[in-house]
Amino acid sequence: MAKEKRNQSNGDGREKLELKKLRELLAEQQLLLKEHRLPVLILLEGWSGAGKGAVLSRVVKSLDPRFYHVYAKSKTTEGEERRPYLWRYFTKIPEAGKIVLMDSGWMEDSVRAHLSGSLDNEDYAARLTSIMAFERQLAVNGYLLFKIFLNISEKEQGKRLDLLREDKNTRWRVNEEDLWQNKHYDKTKKELERFMERTNVPFAPWHVVDGTDIRQAELAVLKLLTGGIDGAVKGAAVRPQPLEEAFPMKKAGLLAEVDLGKALSEKEYEVRLKSGQERLRELHNRIYRKKVPVVIVYEGWDAAGKGGNIKRLAGALDARGYEVVPIAAPEPHEKSRHYLWRFWTHLPKTGHVTVFDRSWYGRVMVERVEGLCSQEEWRRAYQEINEFEKELTDWGAVVVKFWLHIDPETQLERFTERQNTPEKRWKLTDEDWRNREKWPAYEAAVDEMLAKTSTQFAPWHIIESNDKKFARVKAIETVIAAIERAVG
Amino acid sequence: MAKEKRNQSNGDGREKLELKKLRELLAEQQLLLKEHRLPVLILLEGWSGAGKGAVLSRVVKSLDPRFYHVYAKSKTTEGEERRPYLWRYFTKIPEAGKIVLMDSGWMEDSVRAHLSGSLDNEDYAARLTSIMAFERQLAVNGYLLFKIFLNISEKEQGKRLDLLREDKNTRWRVNEEDLWQNKHYDKTKKELERFMERTNVPFAPWHVVDGTDIRQAELAVLKLLTGGIDGAVKGAAVRPQPLEEAFPMKKAGLLAEVDLGKALSEKEYEVRLKSGQERLRELHNRIYRKKVPVVIVYEGWDAAGKGGNIKRLAGALDARGYEVVPIAAPEPHEKSRHYLWRFWTHLPKTGHVTVFDRSWYGRVMVERVEGLCSQEEWRRAYQEINEFEKELTDWGAVVVKFWLHIDPETQLERFTERQNTPEKRWKLTDEDWRNREKWPAYEAAVDEMLAKTSTQFAPWHIIESNDKKFARVKAIETVIAAIERAVG
Repeated sequence: MAKEKRNQSNGDGREKLELKKLRELLAEQQLLLKEHRLPVLILLEGWSGAGKGAVLSRVVKSLDPRFYHVYAKSKTTEGEERRPYLWRYFTKIPEAGKIVLMDSGWMEDSVRAHLSGSLDNEDYAARLTSIMAFERQLAVNGYLLFKIFLNISEKEQGKRLDLLREDKNTRWRVNEEDLWQNKHYDKTKKELERFMERTNVPFAPWHVVDGTDIRQAELAVLKLLTGGIDGAVKGAAVRPQPLEEAFPMKKAGLLAEVDLGKALSEKEYEVRLKSGQERLRELHNRIYRKKVPVVIVYEGWDAAGKGGNIKRLAGALDARGYEVVPIAAPEPHEKSRHYLWRFWTHLPKTGHVTVFDRSWYGRVMVERVEGLCSQEEWRRAYQEINEFEKELTDWGAVVVKFWLHIDPETQLERFTERQNTPEKRWKLTDEDWRNREKWPAYEAAVDEMLAKTSTQFAPWHIIESNDKKFARVKAIETVIAAIERAVG
Repeated sequence: MAKEKRNQSNGDGREKLELKKLRELLAEQQLLLKEHRLPVLILLEGWSGAGKGAVLSRVVKSLDPRFYHVYAKSKTTEGEERRPYLWRYFTKIPEAGKIVLMDSGWMEDSVRAHLSGSLDNEDYAARLTSIMAFERQLAVNGYLLFKIFLNISEKEQGKRLDLLREDKNTRWRVNEEDLWQNKHYDKTKKELERFMERTNVPFAPWHVVDGTDIRQAELAVLKLLTGGIDGAVKGAAVRPQPLEEAFPMKKAGLLAEVDLGKALSEKEYEVRLKSGQERLRELHNRIYRKKVPVVIVYEGWDAAGKGGNIKRLAGALDARGYEVVPIAAPEPHEKSRHYLWRFWTHLPKTGHVTVFDRSWYGRVMVERVEGLCSQEEWRRAYQEINEFEKELTDWGAVVVKFWLHIDPETQLERFTERQNTPEKRWKLTDEDWRNREKWPAYEAAVDEMLAKTSTQFAPWHIIESNDKKFARVKAIETVIAAIERAVG
């Protein structure tokens, strides 16, 4: 208490009154956030000892605790280390109508790592690109993002760190890195300024707040937040332009050219499947040892044979090193976040394999065709997906994407067979029949998807699946080739 | 490959045929599991090098990868270390209709820890009690639990570990502890047998399977699983008896005796709230330093003032060290698991505070009164909840449970006020009015709940809340007293 008071301005009546009014205003704005289903992410960066925790605690005081969540800085966990960098933040984004506050985040991480030498110039540049894409994606998806830097002088920092270390209850808050920072204040300052300059974009600008006086700091932060929220609910928030054409595009109309006559004899199937499975088993050990993550995406027409295909692939793998994630319609807690959120939460650890049985491509297929998202949303999804997959491959993942292709006649045959076979009937739903009627609309969507998301780092593989044997062998051999390219 | 073959029987035709038939049977049974919404948990324990991974991989081969999940043994994470022991298993239980397979689990953990001395006799006994309660809770909630031990001889184990170490792709699978185990085979064996003996209960018996020959082992496991599943879908599974009266009961009818006239003057409120908040702030640093977790439960009548009460409490805490978890109706993925699952997933780490705004007590209140679960289910929930809270307090948590009590007249007043105040109207739903009509049914349920779950380790505190000021001060002072008892 005493300590806190020392850092407080005397607080004339006017200031106290203003503080009170702003707190009340923020409390009222919560209802607006709820009503507008607006998610808010507040990143509070700042010098060690600048009082981020104290400011956060004061700011949330007027809020209803059911509507916000604070993430405290903590040591990087093994789970985080074995996932792409953005995983630790993407998995923590707020739901619609809620507020997430972070006690430092991606700037602190990155600048510290760069200064300590563990992130070299090239990786640091890539990191900045990732972060900027992340921020842009949030903003364009309707997230309100505040980036605040709590500033104190070198001298003030030294004083604060000393104070914290004097009290046994707060001593644990100060670590070696904090002391290092104070010793290398100027160097750190230069790097922080460079970071802020480069990530200072109109839809997510930086706000530097003076942290010398805690009450003044709270006042400044409250002004920022209430002003920003007011603007956002009035629709005045700056939204970035989607960058649709940043990745080279393949020509459209690929599906029409696919030769669906390809087939394998029973004998050739058995031989090639067996040798493929054996090879894959060996490679699974190797990717585990080399800590290479593998992400496999299965998309395709209903009844194209995804289930059986995945089963043959999974059957070759060590059961302890892979996971098959079936993707259905999102549940409420998934739907109320950025649509990529639920895929981020399911990424494999390094050395593991995740097979997505349907995937993030739902956005540009079923959600597009059935009108479950706006045109603007699915249009910009191509770029968002490419960025997502770029994160994965930059992280070192092998990404293999399959489109299991059949013709409408084969689908009808299989639907009919399912209907007539009691133990297969559960696979066939009314929705399947409805989707079938929209074949042309789906075909157009698939064609555009293949064209716009077949990147160099994550190309699509069309699997001719009128003959299931051919499809299974081609899929497994494609995965083998991709892994071999990665682990030699 | 070569290695695996050496461990395979020559496999006469009859055996091969049997294997094929059992694999097909298991594949078919998956549909039955789906249909009956039956969750299956398969725990595969065994000696290091016994081939758990190989058996698992074979067993799942015939399954649809969308319906099972394998958890591989891995190093204990920080998240696990900072949660109660069962957290790592309870959070992994399958959804209805799905299968979870674990490559070793609670026996391995516990016996290893006991043999290494990190779990002394007393803690080991407590551990066994926890595990047995966990298994019983799963079984009685309709989970089908298989506990299998894969057995090999000392000599065979030595041979296998040598083979694994010879190949650079499998070398990482063998660690120091595995070698230790082979060196102390007899001692380990005795301890494993003791564990199995003590946890060998009718509804979750142990099955020892000979792992010398991999194909024979697969055959034995498949027989076990198919037989068990067949029995379960036919309703023949052994279910444990609920143990309703294991904890001492308070007398019922507590609510009628509550003196709702208690109130505080504005002045006394301000003084006591402020000093309480200051004290709590100090204690928050202390529990962080001493790594004591705190779990606070808020239950109470609609409009009893939970939100405002929680806000005053949370306002005293460091925003980086607590979380408020609002509990609403379960989402589909929550509903399809043991009802305590979603609370396990939200437990605090050591040193942190979690406030549950409504809680697991929904089972014996709203779910009971509205008929959302069966009578058998809510009746046995008292014991299940007591066991859950015992886990928490044994782990070292401070557990504080509040019932915010008001009379029907006060509720009506507050409902009416909410209705007439635009910015409060969102708090009032049609459901609130409907619940109000069922006051007597709810009162009976609450009375029974207070009587049956007011244990020594986690007593209920009734907070007289007709006067909100009194309620807030009493809640905060109760939390302070509880924490002080724990951290001195």
